[in-house]
Amino acid sequence: MRSDYLSSGPGFAEGEVIERIEAFRRRRPRLRDELVTLAHGAGGKSSAALVDAVFVEAFRNEALEELGDGAVLALPSGERLALSTDSFVVQPLRFPGGSIGHLAVHGTVNDLACSGAVPRWLSAAFVLEEGFPVAELKEIVADMAAAAAAAGVQIVTGDTKVVPRGAADGLFVTTAGVGVIPAGRTFPAVRTGDRLILSGTMGDHGTAVMLARGDLAIEADVDSDTAAVSDLVETLLAAAPGTRWLRDPTRGGVGTTCNELAQATGLGVVLDEAALPVRPVVNGACEMLGIDPLHVANEGKVVAVVGPDEVDDGLAAMRAHPLGRDAVVVGEITEQPGSTVVLRTAFGGTRIVDMLVGDPLPRIC
Amino acid sequence: MRSDYLSSGPGFAEGEVIERIEAFRRRRPRLRDELVTLAHGAGGKSSAALVDAVFVEAFRNEALEELGDGAVLALPSGERLALSTDSFVVQPLRFPGGSIGHLAVHGTVNDLACSGAVPRWLSAAFVLEEGFPVAELKEIVADMAAAAAAAGVQIVTGDTKVVPRGAADGLFVTTAGVGVIPAGRTFPAVRTGDRLILSGTMGDHGTAVMLARGDLAIEADVDSDTAAVSDLVETLLAAAPGTRWLRDPTRGGVGTTCNELAQATGLGVVLDEAALPVRPVVNGACEMLGIDPLHVANEGKVVAVVGPDEVDDGLAAMRAHPLGRDAVVVGEITEQPGSTVVLRTAFGGTRIVDMLVGDPLPRIC
Repeated sequence: MRSDYLSSGPGFAEGEVIERIEAFRRRRPRLRDELVTLAHGAGGKSSAALVDAVFVEAFRNEALEELGDGAVLALPSGERLALSTDSFVVQPLRFPGGSIGHLAVHGTVNDLACSGAVPRWLSAAFVLEEGFPVAELKEIVADMAAAAAAAGVQIVTGDTKVVPRGAADGLFVTTAGVGVIPAGRTFPAVRTGDRLILSGTMGDHGTAVMLARGDLAIEADVDSDTAAVSDLVETLLAAAPGTRWLRDPTRGGVGTTCNELAQATGLGVVLDEAALPVRPVVNGACEMLGIDPLHVANEGKVVAVVGPDEVDDGLAAMRAHPLGRDAVVVGEITEQPGSTVVLRTAFGGTRIVDMLVGDPLPRIC
Repeated sequence: MRSDYLSSGPGFAEGEVIERIEAFRRRRPRLRDELVTLAHGAGGKSSAALVDAVFVEAFRNEALEELGDGAVLALPSGERLALSTDSFVVQPLRFPGGSIGHLAVHGTVNDLACSGAVPRWLSAAFVLEEGFPVAELKEIVADMAAAAAAAGVQIVTGDTKVVPRGAADGLFVTTAGVGVIPAGRTFPAVRTGDRLILSGTMGDHGTAVMLARGDLAIEADVDSDTAAVSDLVETLLAAAPGTRWLRDPTRGGVGTTCNELAQATGLGVVLDEAALPVRPVVNGACEMLGIDPLHVANEGKVVAVVGPDEVDDGLAAMRAHPLGRDAVVVGEITEQPGSTVVLRTAFGGTRIVDMLVGDPLPRIC
């Protein structure tokens, strides 16, 4: 992990450390680029700038400005739905632990789940490059069907476009999903003293894809964590119904997700480095690449903010779930430093955790 | 138009003509290809084969098997929604009468409207090629915002992926949409004697894009018809509440849409060539290309099946609407020849109208 320590002291209550942290206080970044770069698609700081400057600006509406994983739709009947979408452009299309087909289902299912919805229906739109093997398409579609069945969702509508050779790279797939938000489900505001639970190890998906590409001259067994977290989320919400906030830390990793939380609430997020679960092989690969596992994508994890009164029950419930066995409290919500994520290092120091900058691992999902 | 007349007589009641027509009777085509071809994305016969063999086969569920423009979702409250999605890969991104931004909104809005829903919310997912100009992206997004505002829908959630130079051709956008189906709205079964209304001229969109590409060495003023037909559909349904069937004839054109109708109902569709509205310039361009305007894409038209008792009211209502001024009865539903579309030519002959075969106009939407 990076080691630009801001101080060697443990506290942030006042004094010089705070002043230096304040200088880093996150505001939403500004778009300065004239051309789209890979960083704009990486889910980090540049993505946020592009989204704000181009999409939020043009489409202005309450649901969009929430910038959550999905939009909440209020129907005439009073019923509430969530709607979410993601495009998938991962390369290679198949990697240890899954394929673009699994990702395309899990990604949208997880966005819906983290919006508080029970995922129900998906659409699937394919852009295929002329010459793509039909047999490979069938395998990917079979993965989607299996992932959908396991997650209890139906793929009910779709579209297929084909572009000439060279106009796309094999296959892109875009899913959108609709979920039903159970009556009465609300998320109370995040408060100082709330705890941050991470459902398992960080960076497995990004590392698995990177290794599958042969970007690193190392052989290691890392499987993508791609999975539907909807059942895990329901398990948590049953045990900790006062859960404040949920997000699946995909592109940009847990570090970027925590920054989105800090920005959305204006509060501080203090992470405990010693508690952050990372597989040794993931840590090793990240060190070779000079990137922080806090910025590496996950595809089957949840970051949850739970009140101190419910954190033990919530954690126990998650640990009893197959997808939450390694769940752990990784941090706490603080009043200061506002809008900022800070890592308390294993050596007692602290450093700022920024959103992902640049795109060290393009086409990870 | 093609002229593979099957007979020079006007009738199909019995005899040799029917026997020959029966031999052509449409069944859903079978997939025989090992590699994806442009034809698989053209919306015609090959697309149907791919959808059946790959997607319907893997995702099996009632909503999908309807193969409508959108899926109908039944909520716990009893409320019904429609969900639809389309990817847009049109080249060039801007053409007379619109841009990929307009198409991306209109395409999904029109699918929802033709599913009987009032379109409400859209998602928008972008796949961008590294180096794409931000200013051009902003223009396309502004077109989407304007189209959404005009159609009364909100773009509430989205996604952005960026792929390296050469891995995509500029920009692809995928929208998904959710609409609310008004309580009590149903579509009675299509019956023999029902009339087919087409809301305006055929082939304008496909011709406009083709001319914008410079594929033909002719200069002609043809604007795409890209528009949201949701208000036109509501106008028709208010005047003809017994309307049986609605579809927007996009890729594959009116001819392919009529074949889908014939296949879905098992009935015959008899089109009257003299009634089919085609701009002379569109007819001319199609003749140069050797394609039938019945197979050229529209992006702001509706094909409606209306009972004989309501056809006059429905037609009058459509003609009073700005998007339906050229609406006309173009055909009739017949018992025989089943599952087949037949054109009654201006010379009193008849010929079979097939689904689009091949892809004479790739990347039209």
